[in-house]
Amino acid sequence: MSPHPTRRVLVLNGPNLGRLGSREPDVYGATSYAGLVETCTKLGAELGFDVEVRETNDEGEMIRWLHEAADGSIPVVINPGAFTHYSYAVRDAAAQRTAPLIEVHISNPYTREEFRHTSVVASIASGTVAGFGIGSYRLALRALAEELNG
Amino acid sequence: MSPHPTRRVLVLNGPNLGRLGSREPDVYGATSYAGLVETCTKLGAELGFDVEVRETNDEGEMIRWLHEAADGSIPVVINPGAFTHYSYAVRDAAAQRTAPLIEVHISNPYTREEFRHTSVVASIASGTVAGFGIGSYRLALRALAEELNG
Amino acid sequence: MSPHPTRRVLVLNGPNLGRLGSREPDVYGATSYAGLVETCTKLGAELGFDVEVRETNDEGEMIRWLHEAADGSIPVVINPGAFTHYSYAVRDAAAQRTAPLIEVHISNPYTREEFRHTSVVASIASGTVAGFGIGSYRLALRALAEELNG
Amino acid sequence: MSPHPTRRVLVLNGPNLGRLGSREPDVYGATSYAGLVETCTKLGAELGFDVEVRETNDEGEMIRWLHEAADGSIPVVINPGAFTHYSYAVRDAAAQRTAPLIEVHISNPYTREEFRHTSVVASIASGTVAGFGIGSYRLALRALAEELNG
Amino acid sequence: MSPHPTRRVLVLNGPNLGRLGSREPDVYGATSYAGLVETCTKLGAELGFDVEVRETNDEGEMIRWLHEAADGSIPVVINPGAFTHYSYAVRDAAAQRTAPLIEVHISNPYTREEFRHTSVVASIASGTVAGFGIGSYRLALRALAEELNG
Amino acid sequence: MSPHPTRRVLVLNGPNLGRLGSREPDVYGATSYAGLVETCTKLGAELGFDVEVRETNDEGEMIRWLHEAADGSIPVVINPGAFTHYSYAVRDAAAQRTAPLIEVHISNPYTREEFRHTSVVASIASGTVAGFGIGSYRLALRALAEELNG
Amino acid sequence: MSPHPTRRVLVLNGPNLGRLGSREPDVYGATSYAGLVETCTKLGAELGFDVEVRETNDEGEMIRWLHEAADGSIPVVINPGAFTHYSYAVRDAAAQRTAPLIEVHISNPYTREEFRHTSVVASIASGTVAGFGIGSYRLALRALAEELNG
Amino acid sequence: MSPHPTRRVLVLNGPNLGRLGSREPDVYGATSYAGLVETCTKLGAELGFDVEVRETNDEGEMIRWLHEAADGSIPVVINPGAFTHYSYAVRDAAAQRTAPLIEVHISNPYTREEFRHTSVVASIASGTVAGFGIGSYRLALRALAEELNG
Amino acid sequence: MSPHPTRRVLVLNGPNLGRLGSREPDVYGATSYAGLVETCTKLGAELGFDVEVRETNDEGEMIRWLHEAADGSIPVVINPGAFTHYSYAVRDAAAQRTAPLIEVHISNPYTREEFRHTSVVASIASGTVAGFGIGSYRLALRALAEELNG
Amino acid sequence: MSPHPTRRVLVLNGPNLGRLGSREPDVYGATSYAGLVETCTKLGAELGFDVEVRETNDEGEMIRWLHEAADGSIPVVINPGAFTHYSYAVRDAAAQRTAPLIEVHISNPYTREEFRHTSVVASIASGTVAGFGIGSYRLALRALAEELNG
Amino acid sequence: MSPHPTRRVLVLNGPNLGRLGSREPDVYGATSYAGLVETCTKLGAELGFDVEVRETNDEGEMIRWLHEAADGSIPVVINPGAFTHYSYAVRDAAAQRTAPLIEVHISNPYTREEFRHTSVVASIASGTVAGFGIGSYRLALRALAEELNG
Amino acid sequence: MSPHPTRRVLVLNGPNLGRLGSREPDVYGATSYAGLVETCTKLGAELGFDVEVRETNDEGEMIRWLHEAADGSIPVVINPGAFTHYSYAVRDAAAQRTAPLIEVHISNPYTREEFRHTSVVASIASGTVAGFGIGSYRLALRALAEELNG
Repeated sequence: MSPHPTRRVLVLNGPNLGRLGSREPDVYGATSYAGLVETCTKLGAELGFDVEVRETNDEGEMIRWLHEAADGSIPVVINPGAFTHYSYAVRDAAAQRTAPLIEVHISNPYTREEFRHTSVVASIASGTVAGFGIGSYRLALRALAEELNG
Repeated sequence: MSPHPTRRVLVLNGPNLGRLGSREPDVYGATSYAGLVETCTKLGAELGFDVEVRETNDEGEMIRWLHEAADGSIPVVINPGAFTHYSYAVRDAAAQRTAPLIEVHISNPYTREEFRHTSVVASIASGTVAGFGIGSYRLALRALAEELNG
Repeated sequence: MSPHPTRRVLVLNGPNLGRLGSREPDVYGATSYAGLVETCTKLGAELGFDVEVRETNDEGEMIRWLHEAADGSIPVVINPGAFTHYSYAVRDAAAQRTAPLIEVHISNPYTREEFRHTSVVASIASGTVAGFGIGSYRLALRALAEELNG
Repeated sequence: MSPHPTRRVLVLNGPNLGRLGSREPDVYGATSYAGLVETCTKLGAELGFDVEVRETNDEGEMIRWLHEAADGSIPVVINPGAFTHYSYAVRDAAAQRTAPLIEVHISNPYTREEFRHTSVVASIASGTVAGFGIGSYRLALRALAEELNG
Repeated sequence: MSPHPTRRVLVLNGPNLGRLGSREPDVYGATSYAGLVETCTKLGAELGFDVEVRETNDEGEMIRWLHEAADGSIPVVINPGAFTHYSYAVRDAAAQRTAPLIEVHISNPYTREEFRHTSVVASIASGTVAGFGIGSYRLALRALAEELNG
Repeated sequence: MSPHPTRRVLVLNGPNLGRLGSREPDVYGATSYAGLVETCTKLGAELGFDVEVRETNDEGEMIRWLHEAADGSIPVVINPGAFTHYSYAVRDAAAQRTAPLIEVHISNPYTREEFRHTSVVASIASGTVAGFGIGSYRLALRALAEELNG
Repeated sequence: MSPHPTRRVLVLNGPNLGRLGSREPDVYGATSYAGLVETCTKLGAELGFDVEVRETNDEGEMIRWLHEAADGSIPVVINPGAFTHYSYAVRDAAAQRTAPLIEVHISNPYTREEFRHTSVVASIASGTVAGFGIGSYRLALRALAEELNG
Repeated sequence: MSPHPTRRVLVLNGPNLGRLGSREPDVYGATSYAGLVETCTKLGAELGFDVEVRETNDEGEMIRWLHEAADGSIPVVINPGAFTHYSYAVRDAAAQRTAPLIEVHISNPYTREEFRHTSVVASIASGTVAGFGIGSYRLALRALAEELNG
Repeated sequence: MSPHPTRRVLVLNGPNLGRLGSREPDVYGATSYAGLVETCTKLGAELGFDVEVRETNDEGEMIRWLHEAADGSIPVVINPGAFTHYSYAVRDAAAQRTAPLIEVHISNPYTREEFRHTSVVASIASGTVAGFGIGSYRLALRALAEELNG
Repeated sequence: MSPHPTRRVLVLNGPNLGRLGSREPDVYGATSYAGLVETCTKLGAELGFDVEVRETNDEGEMIRWLHEAADGSIPVVINPGAFTHYSYAVRDAAAQRTAPLIEVHISNPYTREEFRHTSVVASIASGTVAGFGIGSYRLALRALAEELNG
Repeated sequence: MSPHPTRRVLVLNGPNLGRLGSREPDVYGATSYAGLVETCTKLGAELGFDVEVRETNDEGEMIRWLHEAADGSIPVVINPGAFTHYSYAVRDAAAQRTAPLIEVHISNPYTREEFRHTSVVASIASGTVAGFGIGSYRLALRALAEELNG
Repeated sequence: MSPHPTRRVLVLNGPNLGRLGSREPDVYGATSYAGLVETCTKLGAELGFDVEVRETNDEGEMIRWLHEAADGSIPVVINPGAFTHYSYAVRDAAAQRTAPLIEVHISNPYTREEFRHTSVVASIASGTVAGFGIGSYRLALRALAEELNG
């Protein structure tokens, strides 16, 4: 019933997500990025995870983080941000995963009209959680806990 | 911290989902429909919900249940099954919701090749959880708890 | 100049239309379904029609009503609701008509963005009236009167 | 209950419609354009309208008439003819309307195979009436009467 | 060389097919539904089958019949009627089959212009027979006999 | 063997064609519009035709000319110019023809990359001649002579 | 009730079908081409047909065989093989048929992913039988027997 | 004014065209293939051409004929028949032309609904003549005469 | 540094643009057409241009103005209005330009959802300025000054 | 009438633009990147701007610059280079702008055939200037001056 | 390190490739077909192959050669020429290969605008080499040597 | 006949390729990235090249390397990895090449279903080699040797 002793989890955020709370609160909610980090870290601790939250605007850095996770069998919660819609490079890196990888979105990507393309990442994710604001991350961490502790 | 005293929640399942566990375990997992009902009811009780799980193969019945939920402001977890891909009627009924409505899928609909159309329901849902097997329902119930008890 | 002595007319409504007035008044107007029934019955009587207004959320029931109309050569005013966009079964049933069949829509279906598909019913209807709110039904009944009384 | 004293109404017809009755009676019916004018004028008078029926093959002239209607808050019944399928210029002029504007079609445009494009005008019209032959105009005038005298 | 002693076979017909012979004989032939039942029952008996012919306009009922066939390993001949073109729910139910399931069409669906979509059912059927009128059912029954009796 | 005594023929040219020879000789050849008129008139006379060559930049005027031809059963050679690609109004006017109507193009429209749409006029023309420069008109006139003198 | 005395029937096979049984048994079954010939000839004899089975990799030869059948009013069972997907020339030849022509496929063409195009031949065939392996030919011959002996 | 002394011209016909007059007179007219040969030879002689008319159902043979024409700088009139719609091989052979090559069609290919693709040959032809029945060939020969004798 | 002594410049406006300021100020800004004329004339004078501002709802008139400009080598600033989206005739006329021609739009055409087609004029313009309200014209005039005075 | 005292403006250039003048002068003109910097700085000074010109091949760096501009309310002139066609990440960063942001292109992107996609950035820009070579930047700076100084 | 003693290799060329060097040197280079044969034979000998180079304009012949290769486990270098774009029959024959089969193209097929379709052959080839002129064949032979000799 | 004395060659690898051999051996083969470096360096030396193999997950770095190659006229072998499918920025950088640039792929990109887009890089490459595993690089180096020493 108890998880692996403080198993590491990476929460990876793509471009512009480091600015949560400073812009467009109607789309992304009022929680700041600092709040997101705190939420994830705290819930992670409750679930027995050592959660590290990162954000980058660089596709290459995101790819390296995914390689790091693959090499260490570290579970991943990833919000690819705008990479969702075109970065086959991030997709290929995520596909190498050796542990669960969960795709999250703060808002529902299917209601934002300019994005016609579905996620190029979804097909290789363990699962997807979308539309619950910061809550999407919380659900993803719980999903990890269920999956890892079975 | 405690939810509304045993608030009612409807977990509605579309066509063929009543047969969970009896067919295609590689796609839908080994849990039976009875197991799904038990899982939802039990977790619901923990979360302070009075969960009622229903399943139907009839589009009209699903619509009436959604009307019932709209009239009673009852939160809904819905797995529209194959209705996901074409039933604008279910979509319109769901759109009348007066409480949170969460769309769940057992498997990831974007990896099943014959379904090109994205969900016609997603755009009116509060959020979507997909790809975690029976766990998708569990996450959805937790999401409801977070949203309602915020 | 006078019509057939109280010729029967069926006004058939598809899914969710029985809830007119209770939800989304900005889309469907403030008239309730009871008001719709009264409007149609009253105007029908003025025009010499014995109007029966029905609503269903069941595709099969709608099909049976259309068979009933075909067998009895009963003119039909039909608002297929969401069936408009995908039910080839309703279309096939309507195609068997032996009397005028008029398709009505409360709002203009071509301005609701999520519906890309045009009506699959339109090509077999006598005519179409759309966008006048409850008035669409009134115009359809008048059209019937003109067509039947020449 | 009585309408504005002989309120003006413009019935505007696009290209080729002035030739009604002289060609292709199987598509457009046997009524001549003169008959259309008479029908509209007469019914208009009954409804308390001063109806003026015009026809033009010139896109620019149609646009100027729509400007005239917009400036005078004159209700319009418009059969855009072939402009329906491509004239964004007519659409933009019609969009400036300050009174009801109803789009009519003699035949059902969705059954004429060579026209794949839906109406570019429909999205800015008050409503649409199609498929009733000359009767489409009669219904549109009645719709105006209902809307204006509400 | 002889078949299973009177093995049960279900011949399932979708919407509007119960009206065979009463409408549109140029499309569907002059045989009535009663004639279809007799033809299938009689040929079935010759082939050693206990054939039961059913028809429904209800998607949910069709799904339940397919579940019944799956549970009893009963071979199926199915004419999905208009469901062919959109009912992924019928498709999913048919996909659970534990015995041969043959899709039949009275006329050739690829020559009826308004149906652009190919069958959503075909990909999970054992085989397809189309275009032979009532003869399509006869061929399907023979195909079952060959397949079951080797 | 001899034609109708000087039967009238209209050679109608759409927008920009009056400027033949003054611009873009690489696309349209070096012949001027005056040269086109002379070529057509002269060859027409040889063939027993009274050829009148007209050009307009106005869609409405083209439509009126086509009405004139329809009313007088006058054969038409038409180069719709850019109207080829979008003017359903010209198409509808041409469809009313009561004598042969031949569509001509100076250059091959299928090699000019920006025009993806095929001709909306072609489906109602007697025939099409394209790609022979001014010669396209000469061939069209000969085609008329053959067709009319059979 | 008895057929024409040994009426000739042509069973025509397109490219690569002469190699049945030598390659890809998982797709085409284990029956060899010789087995196919024997099966068709034998069942044909039972049905009163003089069946001739041919195979060719040459489009032109297939066309000439179809001309031969058209000239002799010989019924045809045709498996166009890969021609199914692009040969409008075979289609045009088949369209000249003066006797029934039945299209057969060994496997279901709608499940082989690289073939997106539906059959270009189907629209002119009497009927289609697909997905029964060699049994598709047997059913087609029975269909001929029913149609010819009706 | 006089042409090259009896310059050779090839009139090349694709699949099924050798059967002109024997089938589908409503599409291809009543003229037989022999009539076509005679018409072309006779008019050719008048124009100073030594016309040879050929027909083939074999793509490879058509290609070799086009090579022969290219090597001998022989003008070509080609009716590619069904090759029009898919044979890039014929197109590539025709593209090597060293003399005028004119594409002809007996009927207007843009009114035959099943052919959505435009001609793959047109973009490399000198010009196109379509829709004049056998007259299309006559016009093409005249076009050659004008072009060669210019 | 000084421009050609009062070189003429035409500022051409397409359909509905003469009504600037009277309708839909949220889309087109509050400046009236008179204000536009004054702005252009005044800035033109500063830049050494003799600016003439015209507007028309007639496609043919626009074409003639473009011919006038081509003949006189007069630079053009053109706002094609709704012609932007379909008038290949205006495009062809503009393509004949012998001096710079700049396309302007008051608002950004890529944010108005109903216009899916990009500008058919853009590919032949010297450059495009869009989205600056009346300022688009001012920038276009400055661009002309830079280009002409190099 | 005078601008903010030397307000800062960022001129941001995407991938490959730092190589202006060294490659493909026929597409991008002969001006070097140094020339571009000088042009912008100099004109900026005249207009009262403190212009800083930057270039990067890194998507992440571009995003960070856009964040810097958003945080400092600094107006931006951006040439996204190839990012124009796919970088939703740059688009999202630009959408956070708190001051005018103008998209510029040296050449007209709609005439470069391989780019079918319109700009993904355009819908969130204040305006767009394209096709004037280096002049596009000059116009954009002037547009800023007009917009900021009213 | 040494290959199979003079293992046979077939180099198969599709339509029009026998004419290499005689036409369109700008597209296909100056090497003649004889030169191609010599190049392949000579390099083949160096690599220990007995290379036979063939060319055909006939689809059926190409198919038979591929059958021959499949039966003899003979490696193949194939330039399908125009068959690349539509011949599913060649594709099916190539798919039966029992030895490496390498697709070559002289020029890069993705830069020739009229061919929108990618190769229908590529998905079943061992590998593809394109764009090196005659060198594509040389590379393919070297690839065979590497693959066969490990 | 001998190459430039140890001419430099860059072998550039895009995202995820540095992990060759560590993941997904069924797709990419068992060779490690170190093995790839060794293979290229060694074969390069044999061919008289000084080969430098690089890999990056950063689009910007890849662009800078391509600039370096363009400035130094250094031949390039590039495996763009996932950049193949969307990076117009890499494409633009590669287009500036002043020496041969060969695109390689380890596996055949046309058989990986999720990549519908063809390579955006291919149209500016000298040639393409795909599907030979690590052998693709070897062939590309040989192609360089042939092209440079030709």
